[in-house]
Amino acid sequence: MAPVGGALWRQLCAHQVYGANTNVGKTVVSTVLCNGALRHPSARKVGFLKPVSTGPLDEADYRHIERFSPGTLQKGLYQFDEPVSPHIAAQSKTIPKDDEILTGVHTTLTKWADDGIKFALVETAGGVHSPGPNGNSQADLYRPLRLPVVLVGDSRLGGISSSISAFESLLIRGYDVHTVLLFEDDYYKNHEYLRTYFEKRGIPLLSLPQPPEKPPVEDADALARDEEALAAYYESVSKKSDIQGLLDDLSTKNTQRVDRLSSMAERAHNVIWYPFTQHQGMTAKDISVIDSAYDDYFQTYKPDSAQASNAGAGVLKPTFDGSASWWTQGLGHGNPELSLTAAYAAGRYGHVMFAGTVHEPALSLAESLIKAHENPRLGKVFYSDNGSTGMEVAVKMGLRASCARYGWDGSEEQISILGLKGSYHGDTIGVMDCSEPSTYNKKVEWYRGRGYWFDFPQIKMSQGMWHVEVPEELKEALGPNLEFPTLDSIFNLEERVNSDAAKRYRSYIQSTIEDLVAKEGKKFGALIMEPIILGAGGMLFADPLFQYTLTQVTRSNPQLFSPKAPSPSTTSWSGLPVIFDEVFTGLYRLGRRTAASFLGLHPDITVNAKLLTGGLLPLCTTMASNEIFDAFSSPEKSDALLHGHSYTAHAIGCTVAQKSLQTMMDMEQTGQWNPYQADWTSASSPAAHTKPEDAIWSSWSHGLVRDLSFAHSVEGLFAIGTVLSITLRDESGKGGSLRSFPLPTRRNYLRHFNSSLGYTSTAAQGLQKRLAVTGKPYGVHSRVLGNVIYLMASVTSKPESLREIEGLLREALL
Amino acid sequence: MAPVGGALWRQLCAHQVYGANTNVGKTVVSTVLCNGALRHPSARKVGFLKPVSTGPLDEADYRHIERFSPGTLQKGLYQFDEPVSPHIAAQSKTIPKDDEILTGVHTTLTKWADDGIKFALVETAGGVHSPGPNGNSQADLYRPLRLPVVLVGDSRLGGISSSISAFESLLIRGYDVHTVLLFEDDYYKNHEYLRTYFEKRGIPLLSLPQPPEKPPVEDADALARDEEALAAYYESVSKKSDIQGLLDDLSTKNTQRVDRLSSMAERAHNVIWYPFTQHQGMTAKDISVIDSAYDDYFQTYKPDSAQASNAGAGVLKPTFDGSASWWTQGLGHGNPELSLTAAYAAGRYGHVMFAGTVHEPALSLAESLIKAHENPRLGKVFYSDNGSTGMEVAVKMGLRASCARYGWDGSEEQISILGLKGSYHGDTIGVMDCSEPSTYNKKVEWYRGRGYWFDFPQIKMSQGMWHVEVPEELKEALGPNLEFPTLDSIFNLEERVNSDAAKRYRSYIQSTIEDLVAKEGKKFGALIMEPIILGAGGMLFADPLFQYTLTQVTRSNPQLFSPKAPSPSTTSWSGLPVIFDEVFTGLYRLGRRTAASFLGLHPDITVNAKLLTGGLLPLCTTMASNEIFDAFSSPEKSDALLHGHSYTAHAIGCTVAQKSLQTMMDMEQTGQWNPYQADWTSASSPAAHTKPEDAIWSSWSHGLVRDLSFAHSVEGLFAIGTVLSITLRDESGKGGSLRSFPLPTRRNYLRHFNSSLGYTSTAAQGLQKRLAVTGKPYGVHSRVLGNVIYLMASVTSKPESLREIEGLLREALL
Repeated sequence: MAPVGGALWRQLCAHQVYGANTNVGKTVVSTVLCNGALRHPSARKVGFLKPVSTGPLDEADYRHIERFSPGTLQKGLYQFDEPVSPHIAAQSKTIPKDDEILTGVHTTLTKWADDGIKFALVETAGGVHSPGPNGNSQADLYRPLRLPVVLVGDSRLGGISSSISAFESLLIRGYDVHTVLLFEDDYYKNHEYLRTYFEKRGIPLLSLPQPPEKPPVEDADALARDEEALAAYYESVSKKSDIQGLLDDLSTKNTQRVDRLSSMAERAHNVIWYPFTQHQGMTAKDISVIDSAYDDYFQTYKPDSAQASNAGAGVLKPTFDGSASWWTQGLGHGNPELSLTAAYAAGRYGHVMFAGTVHEPALSLAESLIKAHENPRLGKVFYSDNGSTGMEVAVKMGLRASCARYGWDGSEEQISILGLKGSYHGDTIGVMDCSEPSTYNKKVEWYRGRGYWFDFPQIKMSQGMWHVEVPEELKEALGPNLEFPTLDSIFNLEERVNSDAAKRYRSYIQSTIEDLVAKEGKKFGALIMEPIILGAGGMLFADPLFQYTLTQVTRSNPQLFSPKAPSPSTTSWSGLPVIFDEVFTGLYRLGRRTAASFLGLHPDITVNAKLLTGGLLPLCTTMASNEIFDAFSSPEKSDALLHGHSYTAHAIGCTVAQKSLQTMMDMEQTGQWNPYQADWTSASSPAAHTKPEDAIWSSWSHGLVRDLSFAHSVEGLFAIGTVLSITLRDESGKGGSLRSFPLPTRRNYLRHFNSSLGYTSTAAQGLQKRLAVTGKPYGVHSRVLGNVIYLMASVTSKPESLREIEGLLREALL
Repeated sequence: MAPVGGALWRQLCAHQVYGANTNVGKTVVSTVLCNGALRHPSARKVGFLKPVSTGPLDEADYRHIERFSPGTLQKGLYQFDEPVSPHIAAQSKTIPKDDEILTGVHTTLTKWADDGIKFALVETAGGVHSPGPNGNSQADLYRPLRLPVVLVGDSRLGGISSSISAFESLLIRGYDVHTVLLFEDDYYKNHEYLRTYFEKRGIPLLSLPQPPEKPPVEDADALARDEEALAAYYESVSKKSDIQGLLDDLSTKNTQRVDRLSSMAERAHNVIWYPFTQHQGMTAKDISVIDSAYDDYFQTYKPDSAQASNAGAGVLKPTFDGSASWWTQGLGHGNPELSLTAAYAAGRYGHVMFAGTVHEPALSLAESLIKAHENPRLGKVFYSDNGSTGMEVAVKMGLRASCARYGWDGSEEQISILGLKGSYHGDTIGVMDCSEPSTYNKKVEWYRGRGYWFDFPQIKMSQGMWHVEVPEELKEALGPNLEFPTLDSIFNLEERVNSDAAKRYRSYIQSTIEDLVAKEGKKFGALIMEPIILGAGGMLFADPLFQYTLTQVTRSNPQLFSPKAPSPSTTSWSGLPVIFDEVFTGLYRLGRRTAASFLGLHPDITVNAKLLTGGLLPLCTTMASNEIFDAFSSPEKSDALLHGHSYTAHAIGCTVAQKSLQTMMDMEQTGQWNPYQADWTSASSPAAHTKPEDAIWSSWSHGLVRDLSFAHSVEGLFAIGTVLSITLRDESGKGGSLRSFPLPTRRNYLRHFNSSLGYTSTAAQGLQKRLAVTGKPYGVHSRVLGNVIYLMASVTSKPESLREIEGLLREALL
């Protein structure tokens, strides 16, 4: 099913009518507004849409509009016979899917806009949380359209409360309430209290006289009198100046919203300093304006909608968030459960300082994470705000532990990091220094790189086979490229560890370290790796055997690093503290709770961020073994770990993270990803010594990966978990990964540039553009890394949604 | 008014009964539960409290319980005669303040717990948002007690919606809903839908048979029959096993909550690695367990409540958040407007990646901040996650600008920072290196300090007078200590700039820089200062004349820094880019929108965090001039500013920040701080060349500061804005500020240690303990910095609340 666009048109002022409760007078209010619009000096064409109606009750509503607002164009989409709540009526009928209802509403409004209708109302059924046909509440069902809201308040006893609660339920879902209307009741005076309440929040409230009371239905004369009275009521109310003023206001708000969207790129270009962006040559046109987001999609402003003579052109276009918003998204944008969870924590705590205190979310999350990691080494959790700060903490931990054990004075000598080429651990200066230097680093005033970074073999599929590609200059040491039938067989370390390749890896790693330490006198303080995929370096898929071997050599040969080293240990840290940077790869990004589990390794320190909060807000955890923790234990307070941020372990972040982790673990437990797993398992050879639950899988289909691997323009690709990464051949026909190009200022900065660097392939950029502007009413927002284009799903992405995107890829590449 | 404690007792299981709407049957449900509890095998004593009741309607409720649950102890606190909503009834009567109502409820429940009552219900009036006597809604009014909730759902048409919305309104305010009850309606079947809904969220729902219908009131016989029918209804329902099961469940939840609180310190001690904390010697007892927070108060677990033979001992104690949660709090803990704002942003966007895109909150906040700063230099806003990362960005900006202008190659030469001693800019390694080294830094493996840090004169009050204290070793250069009658006169820079002191400052600063550059060959890349107060360094109140002069010398003498420097300029950066770290001092922390305004200076780069989000969650802005921005402009993408975090400009943070900024600016505009200002203005001499709106003020009373300045144990103190800082004499009788002690590892780490270092005074610690455990049912959670103890208010703190805390200080010190 194609995604639906946000419902916004320049010429058509459309609103959704929500009720604070059932029977608060939505239809009367709608009739007043439609009548008012018909009488408006601008002689508007008016539409009234009731997407889902149930039985005689709603039929009456329908007739009501027909009778009392005869000029209004009316439409219904789905009709249930029984006069009950749609979710009950629906039990006995073919149920339209929520997506179909949304598409129906969007299509209708588009046609109306095209037909010159200027004012439209879309009426909901019942109150804001009354269930729709599939059981989702009105507010959840219609959220992807995010129509601005006309809220009909409740004038009865108790109506203050239900009106405010309904308003809050709408707010939590990111709706903009443009006005509140309700009837005047001189006894309860809800409208007075609510007027103050809503005006304080910038929302005008209009109170209407009570409509004439309904007579008993049996009496025909009375009915006629009722009709007359009602007609007189509408006649008098609809032309009142405050109704006309309100309609002007609604129309102005619609125009202002569109104007604001159309001005935002220019204004942003004026005041925003973007991360990792060269602003020279950048124009306002290069900035995508995001109105809102839902599930996997942004609602993006279409600049061409401004001038379009075609009034039906919607202002917003659904755009697949192909970078998962810099790899953060897990549970979808605008997830109401996460919003509520965040709000609960804010309401219960706000923020509570976190030194010498504890609160439930910080504690529960720490305990849950330790349990979830199934790494017997991890005993302590340190909180910070993002992956970069969390890695700074990890580095401080690692250096202290090794300096303490080996008796080095870190303030006198340079203690270095052992890592991989193309690594990236964040943008603060301390961890920037833990990634390798480059030919361009003289441009950067603050870089003081310290370390040694191994080059390594990489995995990708091409021509239908999986390959381990060894860098040219390492072939002598590490052996030739290897070919495997399945990804599972590459991860069969139990078998591969006895291979020739493994022997060569071991010997190469060991002799390199020996040389660095013995000949160059280097002192290493920690081994740092992004397990499996080095993301920012260009989606480098490391041969797991190499990462495994590097860790094992480090741990089995502690004397490599210092003569003072105790004998190797398999339970305590040995050789060097091993730090896994799972900021990107952890917490189900690759389909598993930890990336370490692919390697069967237990790091001494692990850092998580990005998916930790399901994609909502910044939080980071650095987990460490009790042994590392003990390295800071001393009678001197000044020996403590010198790190902390004001919002350390902020309650909102911890609460949302706990909820996200639990949700993702529940999804794993209840087999939510079974369809994806089945797709990959069936494609795999049955053998490969892999337990079915350990099989590698991706939410991108195996068929897509195989088919694209034969495409002329594709040099190689892979998919694992939610990540799909495609390396394109560059125009010169010279394939080769990003690694074969000269390094830019810092390799990792490629992550952030939405373009290649001139000397890299422009093929990825070309594909990026084709995916952004398709022949369809939706597109893909993606990021490229040199000649690599990648797409990333959420863990909640639905197969049908991803297959839609895969279709675009196939069209572009096959 | 003394603050009220959270309502929690070990022996008493107390709940608050909220209604999804008016007339949903709260009283019937309460009667069922009270009856059930009376019949419970444990033969409970039961209490029913209706704090505020209105007229005959509620009298009927009262009689209802009396009649149908005769063993239940009943109590009302406030009674209004008219049968209308309390907020209307209250218009014609003396209105109890919300605080009085809360205290009344707490006192009653305490007494009941003391009397051995095991089960109590506190009934609200109307729905969750029905207004209380002062216009605040039920849910807002009772929030400080945070009683767990029994929610009575609505079984009528529309009741699904109103029940869920009511539930959401409670969640947003941090309430725990323990159960939902509602009547069975076989037609609408709300209970079925809602049971699924709530059980998914771990909340049991119990449906009750409908009570017998009420007969018309006029008929005495019918009334009697009604009574009988009702009695039979209660008889049959109350003894049902599911009611008894529910009561057991409620009781278990109460016990579990207390048990959890009592176990949390131990568990935290086991798994949490605290920031800036030496864990050796730390025990679980040193950890405060925070149940929740509201306004300026934590609700802290009282460990002694566990063993108390006194059943009335509450488990929670209100504790003033004296460090404003590490200086972050602005709009109070648990602020429902901020919760809603956060939820709205989460619902509308989740998180949206921020490179080449823009969304409304990020743009609006950027524009608002630029406007609010009234600094014509600032043109661009760069977002990051916390003060430390924002300062890293500022440093990268400053170094680039100066290297570009002066033709330095930052990768070859050390470019240094000019700053002040005792400065602190965050804990990431890059900005740690921008603060001065210390005698202990050999312990830190990663420190590579680069810069020169000026010592400077400090401000404090002692013996009723304001002093400028010049460091002993600088007296020769800077002149003697000075005395001023008012703080305003110290800030009268217009006058002071012509003083002898100013001349000496100028000449000292200029010659020092000359020596550093000419003789030592140092190259400086930026001037970095925390204007007015250097917080983490020990609440050092810098003489504004010194900071002003340092900036002016830097800007007026650019040739000091490089022969290539162009002539001085007053509009573009000159000499060095001037970076103000307003992370702590900005955004009304000192009573003004910017700390720079006290100095009348316009920095080239300004960093804000902490109060930016009103105290809710991490966000940071680094604002810079267009000129600094242009230093990164180049045809090379690799010349761009290399910085960015995944959650850069996250929508929740930006939306909350925009709301906070607007709220605080509105408070300023509408004179919310007038009482504080009046207190300080009246104490000031009327002259002092200060415009009234420029007068210095504090939310801590001038009288307190003056009185304490005579206290024997006080060496000096000051208050400005929301900050009160007291330097205590140490035990040896040797006064002197923190500055006179040897520097610890890094001076700034003192901020984080909740104790002195052995060689510093223990007086502050002693005072800290006295404030924590007072003779009152509430205490103060404070932080000390060596021999300095400080207290910090929110911008929303009420005078009567702060005077209460001042009373504790007076008791302890006078």
